Amino acid sequence: MGITDETLKRRLDGFRKRMRDKEIDMALLVEPDNQYYVSGFRAISYSRPIICLVYLNSLQFILPELEKDHASQSARTDELYVYHEIACHRGKDTQFHRPLEHLLDRQPASSTIGVEVDTLPAALYCMLHERNFIVKDMGPDLMEMRMKKDQEEIHWIKQAGVLSDLALESSLHHVQPGISELELDSFGDKKLLEAASQQFPDQLIGFADWTCSGITRSFMPHLASSTRKLEKNDVVVHSRQVWVNHYRAENERTFLIGRPSNEQKYCLELAIEAQAQAMQVVKPGVCAKDIDLAAYHVFEKHGYGEHVQHRTGHGLGLTEHEEPYLRFDNELQLEEGMVYTIEPGIYVPGVGGFRHSDTVIVTNNGFESVTQYPRSLEDMIL
Amino acid sequence: MGITDETLKRRLDGFRKRMRDKEIDMALLVEPDNQYYVSGFRAISYSRPIICLVYLNSLQFILPELEKDHASQSARTDELYVYHEIACHRGKDTQFHRPLEHLLDRQPASSTIGVEVDTLPAALYCMLHERNFIVKDMGPDLMEMRMKKDQEEIHWIKQAGVLSDLALESSLHHVQPGISELELDSFGDKKLLEAASQQFPDQLIGFADWTCSGITRSFMPHLASSTRKLEKNDVVVHSRQVWVNHYRAENERTFLIGRPSNEQKYCLELAIEAQAQAMQVVKPGVCAKDIDLAAYHVFEKHGYGEHVQHRTGHGLGLTEHEEPYLRFDNELQLEEGMVYTIEPGIYVPGVGGFRHSDTVIVTNNGFESVTQYPRSLEDMIL
Repeated sequence: MGITDETLKRRLDGFRKRMRDKEIDMALLVEPDNQYYVSGFRAISYSRPIICLVYLNSLQFILPELEKDHASQSARTDELYVYHEIACHRGKDTQFHRPLEHLLDRQPASSTIGVEVDTLPAALYCMLHERNFIVKDMGPDLMEMRMKKDQEEIHWIKQAGVLSDLALESSLHHVQPGISELELDSFGDKKLLEAASQQFPDQLIGFADWTCSGITRSFMPHLASSTRKLEKNDVVVHSRQVWVNHYRAENERTFLIGRPSNEQKYCLELAIEAQAQAMQVVKPGVCAKDIDLAAYHVFEKHGYGEHVQHRTGHGLGLTEHEEPYLRFDNELQLEEGMVYTIEPGIYVPGVGGFRHSDTVIVTNNGFESVTQYPRSLEDMIL
Repeated sequence: MGITDETLKRRLDGFRKRMRDKEIDMALLVEPDNQYYVSGFRAISYSRPIICLVYLNSLQFILPELEKDHASQSARTDELYVYHEIACHRGKDTQFHRPLEHLLDRQPASSTIGVEVDTLPAALYCMLHERNFIVKDMGPDLMEMRMKKDQEEIHWIKQAGVLSDLALESSLHHVQPGISELELDSFGDKKLLEAASQQFPDQLIGFADWTCSGITRSFMPHLASSTRKLEKNDVVVHSRQVWVNHYRAENERTFLIGRPSNEQKYCLELAIEAQAQAMQVVKPGVCAKDIDLAAYHVFEKHGYGEHVQHRTGHGLGLTEHEEPYLRFDNELQLEEGMVYTIEPGIYVPGVGGFRHSDTVIVTNNGFESVTQYPRSLEDMIL
């Protein structure tokens, strides 16, 4: 469980090299996945801010008292600044602002501070701005570093993939008219937690899933599961996500109950074919956009181009969506160790939504899919 | 499912009154719960930003194409600006920035823009700052409005409470050495989804739960569940959260397996007593801090004050943590319709963590607990 010291050292060395290249004196990180990536510590934070400060020669955290022991155990940190919320500590720091102000006041005038401009709250940005610090974005640096996975990361992503297949099998095995979307999900949840408990002792496992059933709901690509009951002849898009020690795999299947219409079968075949075409393109050196376009052209060629609503896939790892994004306009070249979903879909009014999603790793000469559940039309008519 | 037109109109009227009081011309909201509160629309957004713009006479959204149909169905909006990510739309807006820039350019010079400074990303703040708009924080306004729940909100919170009791009962019924924390959770998950599917057709239900078992893990108040297996004589803090149509209840119990030590029994009794004392104080007009101090004094009086790590509770509703926060320094006066947890806890090295949490509603002369699962020491020795 957790990241080895060697890996963390390599990451911090790489991050600090980028800091030096940009002449950054200190980086202030708020995004929990980025904090975990450089420190090994990830908390459930809710209303209590946690701030990670990376200096060229130390790593420090500002955090609430209830995370102190957790951070002491898992963060590779040089200093913890704790703020309190209990009466007996009323003379100490009782909000995160004071220790942060204290640290910023110690920073030489006109220092350059690295931040994540897409997630740093405006309130914190203003604290830096008022002190006349130069602010530079390091969000893209972290995204670039995280985009290519190392062996430890790939190991956990593969385990997540194996568990997601088991969950999918259990959920699809229990499909029948009358059970709700949420009940369908829960069969997979239970199976995966049983299997995870046997196979991976003392690890952190998590999951998310949603099911969009029927013509109206499957037409919308992103909906949380509801208590709607499956009906005879429904089209259903079932999405399963699993993470092992914070590393994720995504696994989605569209299935048809009973006697689907010919157009529903045709649309699902197109989605399967588009995914297969996109997979064939994957290898190092190819651009992200080439994968997107390979899928899109299948739909377009058959007259369904206008029913595409979203790109072909997205990177994943610590975060559910990260680079590389498989979009028509992303020139990024793929490299060995990148991980992303391939999930082209079409959404046809009055017919339904059709999308399989698999998580693939770029290898030195092609790709490996960490999710292996059957994809064919025959397997998807239940 | 969803919010009635009448309720949304009342909320928007109230929000716009606050805008006028602060001389705000337009509010730019990014926080998903705030967006839902004023519009009825809540999406799974991940990497695709969704921006809600509230003008004095209209409500508009900037969103990705895949949310267009979803928003059309649930948002009470006057205008949707859609951005695209597909090759055939390459001539249109393909990121959220362009429609936002377009709308900001149309805004009169030196307009005043309302924002949520604690969640607005620095990148968006800079767009406003560069245009010389005056920026005012409306985060506290939304928090104040949301703090007091209306009848619709209380209805869903109560249903969430009922479901959380069922889940808790099922999880605790299955406690035995050898099952993992995640398996313990999954019994409750399954039960609640079955019950929800029967009792609340066509609704959105969600849940989160974590279990911290054993002396070392229960000592840390906030940890995600792991595959650690329960052992004979473990102390276990089990946290169950359920939401119905986005409205939440929290329900936590600490239980002891087998033959707990005398100090473990004593600590749990103290936590139970502290919670009971805190509940007795609840009624309109009392300050948030009075509830916190009522609980804290129980621990302090018995020599356990130093083992408190966190405040006595937090408001909840759409968000897991919101006002009122039950802290020693919060002078906020309680009002009928406020909803929060009461969850005093102690964490004793070598002994374990001890905390029950219940969700209560302030009534006109006291309180009602929406979570009802037994709390006594006898009920907690399994």
